[in-house]
Amino acid sequence: LPNQTHKRLLIRPVDEICSISDILPQTDNWKGTEKFLRSVILLKYIREENVRTNKILEFHHPAEMLQLIDLEIPEKPQNLEHLVKCCEEVLRLGVRTGHPRFFNQISCGLDLVSMAGEWLTATANTNMFTYEIAPVFILMEKAVMKRMWEAIGWDVETADGIFAPGGAIANLYALSTARHALYPHSKYVGLKDVPTLCVFTSEDSHYSIKSAAAVCGIGSDFCFNIPTDNAGKMIPEALEVKIIESKKDGLVPLFVCCTAGTTVYGACDPIEKVADICKRHKIWLHVDAAWGGGLLLSPEYRYKLAGIERANSVTWNPHKLMGALLQCSACLFRQDGLLFQCNQMSADYLFMQDKPYDVSYDTGDKAIQCGRHNDVFKLWLMWKSKGMEGYRQQVNRLMDLAGYFTQRIRETEGYELVIDPPEFLNICFWYVPNNLRELDPVERKARLEKIAPKIKARMMERGTTMVGYQPDKQRPNFFRMIISNQAITKDDLDFLIEEIIDIGETL
Amino acid sequence: LPNQTHKRLLIRPVDEICSISDILPQTDNWKGTEKFLRSVILLKYIREENVRTNKILEFHHPAEMLQLIDLEIPEKPQNLEHLVKCCEEVLRLGVRTGHPRFFNQISCGLDLVSMAGEWLTATANTNMFTYEIAPVFILMEKAVMKRMWEAIGWDVETADGIFAPGGAIANLYALSTARHALYPHSKYVGLKDVPTLCVFTSEDSHYSIKSAAAVCGIGSDFCFNIPTDNAGKMIPEALEVKIIESKKDGLVPLFVCCTAGTTVYGACDPIEKVADICKRHKIWLHVDAAWGGGLLLSPEYRYKLAGIERANSVTWNPHKLMGALLQCSACLFRQDGLLFQCNQMSADYLFMQDKPYDVSYDTGDKAIQCGRHNDVFKLWLMWKSKGMEGYRQQVNRLMDLAGYFTQRIRETEGYELVIDPPEFLNICFWYVPNNLRELDPVERKARLEKIAPKIKARMMERGTTMVGYQPDKQRPNFFRMIISNQAITKDDLDFLIEEIIDIGETL
Repeated sequence: LPNQTHKRLLIRPVDEICSISDILPQTDNWKGTEKFLRSVILLKYIREENVRTNKILEFHHPAEMLQLIDLEIPEKPQNLEHLVKCCEEVLRLGVRTGHPRFFNQISCGLDLVSMAGEWLTATANTNMFTYEIAPVFILMEKAVMKRMWEAIGWDVETADGIFAPGGAIANLYALSTARHALYPHSKYVGLKDVPTLCVFTSEDSHYSIKSAAAVCGIGSDFCFNIPTDNAGKMIPEALEVKIIESKKDGLVPLFVCCTAGTTVYGACDPIEKVADICKRHKIWLHVDAAWGGGLLLSPEYRYKLAGIERANSVTWNPHKLMGALLQCSACLFRQDGLLFQCNQMSADYLFMQDKPYDVSYDTGDKAIQCGRHNDVFKLWLMWKSKGMEGYRQQVNRLMDLAGYFTQRIRETEGYELVIDPPEFLNICFWYVPNNLRELDPVERKARLEKIAPKIKARMMERGTTMVGYQPDKQRPNFFRMIISNQAITKDDLDFLIEEIIDIGETL
Repeated sequence: LPNQTHKRLLIRPVDEICSISDILPQTDNWKGTEKFLRSVILLKYIREENVRTNKILEFHHPAEMLQLIDLEIPEKPQNLEHLVKCCEEVLRLGVRTGHPRFFNQISCGLDLVSMAGEWLTATANTNMFTYEIAPVFILMEKAVMKRMWEAIGWDVETADGIFAPGGAIANLYALSTARHALYPHSKYVGLKDVPTLCVFTSEDSHYSIKSAAAVCGIGSDFCFNIPTDNAGKMIPEALEVKIIESKKDGLVPLFVCCTAGTTVYGACDPIEKVADICKRHKIWLHVDAAWGGGLLLSPEYRYKLAGIERANSVTWNPHKLMGALLQCSACLFRQDGLLFQCNQMSADYLFMQDKPYDVSYDTGDKAIQCGRHNDVFKLWLMWKSKGMEGYRQQVNRLMDLAGYFTQRIRETEGYELVIDPPEFLNICFWYVPNNLRELDPVERKARLEKIAPKIKARMMERGTTMVGYQPDKQRPNFFRMIISNQAITKDDLDFLIEEIIDIGETL
């Protein structure tokens, strides 16, 4: 057993002056503490990230990267100066996802108000399970969800929801709650004696629906992919055929997922028609609006999600279109109470019922998680900064930019749209270099398959811009442009078009 | 559709000078941006939180709280000055979980290096699913896990793991992976045609094991609670009896969870003996070391987890004993590959195989989540600051303080230990006010039940300190002291003892 020589100022390496033993709470040396914290304030990084001519990344292969930065956890404590240098190195070798020309992900950009909110969240460092230790944040979660329920079109008095760590877990919440609503007993006795359940989602939907079916014990093979039309939208007639077929096979249709904003094409499934089918067959309707949810904030574009108020549950990630920092995702329910019934485990040793305040505010029993990160403050602060009006303008402006970019792609030689017109902020296109344009279709397609990966690799070496690509069905690799960073201007879009031509013609 | 009047500087309310349209990326006004960011730097809060005589909280009931702060999302944009005021209000009305006398949770304290790490994480704002967009952080995750695998005693060449949003999800990962290892086909076809599975965990274990069984479709009734001894440790003989019984009943034992550091008593189950039983019956052994995992960093105390290297999976939350900011939790696996096989959904549209780098570094296919928050940097930076040596000293020092506090409780009139000696950093005790001491046992117990909630309520009104309480089995409500904040000194422990007497005698 350790002897009594352990003192408070224990971590002071002999040859280093400023170590963690010089800062709070190891000492009450406020000056040293302040100096350290000020040195990690990231203003310089933020400023440089916003300069368009600065590189987005300095690409290195994993093996090279391991030579450039010492990631090992050392035996001995490191001094603060070294830590600050580590921070600089990590930022230098990372990817500037807030750069105005980073178009690679659906979640792009760095909203500085949301970032300030996340700094405060870190400093407040609390857990969202009880009012006792997160009084303001628990109430805030409800105030924010109220706006989201309103945007969906639900009665805010009887709606429910929870912030979840990402859209995949939000979809898992939805599926698990739907299962509970239909077979509440399965919470206790499992799926063994329940009829074989099945789930329906479009072939273009996010893979997390299939994953949730696997986790829940339903099985990914019982998550049926419904075909989509040329625009990437679920074909409602095909859905109904599959539902009827599954019933004939003795299965119980449990859950239909409509996607509002698919990952690749940004397509919105026809919610009204799907809701009619779900009503006819009495099936839980979930809308995965992880990406498209933000459209609800624009009176001009919310029609794309018409019918969403008929859903039983909705996934909506404010870290996508709304631009909140990662991560910020909500799973929302039309009917209050189900989430609690589904997840409550009566852990009275954590969620005591004899507290001095109204314990109905505690959220621990509604969650699959026990500890839950505070994801609401960064959203709340950002939403306050913009107001409903600001978001309306932001969404409309991004849609305008998408229209501009689409038109530029249509008009520029060598470019071809995969889906025309795109319906949302994903614009999928090929760039066909000059020397491929006259080839016969088979060879052209075979060679085109390799073009996007090559351009992307060169783009990452240059570090000037980043945009994703993927193949889909019979289509060879194409680029997927995402316009969600509020920093984007028309010039940035023009830049991308020129840069791809520049790289593509020198391959 | 929106017309073309939407300009870049769109969000400028007429009567406000400094709004978000005055900061990046809406303008290139760096001065305004810098001013805003500097104004939210939280140095003042951090300094005040560390002053012991400052209050931990200003308690208000939910209805009062809603009067004190305007949580509504407004129609119009709010100016930056107002946002900064909002931040101040939120901090003022919150709970100072980093205060040296906040003993309420297993996760306490505010390590400033970890906090600086979280600030950087927010600013870097990236997603952990691919090397492409998180090259340094992906490699860092592996470097940090390597130290964790070593601490457990596994071969680092063949171990695996993932950072998960909290211990409950980490336990869900473990259970789902165990199911996959035994019945890989269930991923595709569900549990319908699999024998009835069952899970074993101690009656003192965390409720998330039961919750995971419910989510996975096994059912919470098939999660069997194994009795514990007087110290709160699982009784291995009782486990084996239950396993044999379940087999006789036609069930298939899937998963045994050993807890290393139970939530209430901090007890560590006898892992070696349980591992022998699991070996005999060929059952997956999981160790939920969410709380106790940090003990592995102390050569003096790691014997409490002896046998953990025999586990198939381990949950370990660095946001608990190691003091990382919330949240930081890992689910670790002895055998590489299973996690990938279990969760991979072949989403080639996200995790392309024709990238210019070695895609085996991409972690997206190993996760239930798609987007995944970067929880590793704050841990890595903090661990660098302390080194292995610093953590050894920190853990030993906390154990020393627990010994000191236990001795003080033993010696101070009116106090009684619930379990003596406590084995870890949870010290559970009653305070019996003077006027209860001579009562007959039945009445004493009935009245004692109400003492801890009353003292806690008064404590929250005073705001001087915070410590949790709960009942357990036949025991009336008792306090659960947690010594995990590295800021704690002996004086703080003495203070708690005096404060409880002071409140308890004036009830």
